[in-house]
Amino acid sequence: MSDLPPDLVNLRSSIDNIDAALVHLLAERFKATQRVGELKAAVGLPPADPVREERQIARLRGLADEAGLDPQFAEKFITFVIAEVIRHHEALTTGPADAGAAAGETGGEAPGGNIEQPAAPRAPVDPARQ
Amino acid sequence: MSDLPPDLVNLRSSIDNIDAALVHLLAERFKATQRVGELKAAVGLPPADPVREERQIARLRGLADEAGLDPQFAEKFITFVIAEVIRHHEALTTGPADAGAAAGETGGEAPGGNIEQPAAPRAPVDPARQ
Repeated sequence: MSDLPPDLVNLRSSIDNIDAALVHLLAERFKATQRVGELKAAVGLPPADPVREERQIARLRGLADEAGLDPQFAEKFITFVIAEVIRHHEALTTGPADAGAAAGETGGEAPGGNIEQPAAPRAPVDPARQ
Repeated sequence: MSDLPPDLVNLRSSIDNIDAALVHLLAERFKATQRVGELKAAVGLPPADPVREERQIARLRGLADEAGLDPQFAEKFITFVIAEVIRHHEALTTGPADAGAAAGETGGEAPGGNIEQPAAPRAPVDPARQ
């Protein structure tokens, strides 16, 4: 390690800092989606909102393009997060009708899933990591 | 939209802000990995560093746990990012020997891939989104 170029050491330090920030933002995001899920359930709103999701993806693609990030990667990233949220939600859902309704609204695909589905980030609902 | 509960509107606004921050951090991260890849190539260092990657994953799992985020999700997230970086790198690699060496070091799996592989986030190298 000690014989690494100083520039490389500095870059690694920056990458580590960025990764820590990403993890903390994701933690905050899951807290928000959890609250959204609870709120929607309380007022009787459906868990999925494909119109909003489509807007979110389009917006993130635009932001990515401005920031110099591949918009396709940005879309894959948010799709990945959505899929995780849905996975947690489905694992916690006791009524199969709910999961079926959500899948119907989204066509069974992660990109159409609700970005605001409730999640339980700390729950060890999936030990096998799928 | 106008008949949504105010709390839901506020939460959605926060989620949108968090997502924008995530996209910008990811853009910065890819800039750093690109520089790392260029630097490693210049000094003749191998692209993959499994020991560092293992430390990174362990660290992020610890940070996630402290932040209230499922450590398994944190690991899946960084694995997803690594896989994207490798994918971009492989698409840009002209010499197949390089890609083979990287796959050999990582066992062909994303978690063992080098988190610091160079990437070209804006390059439309994969129109099919795999």
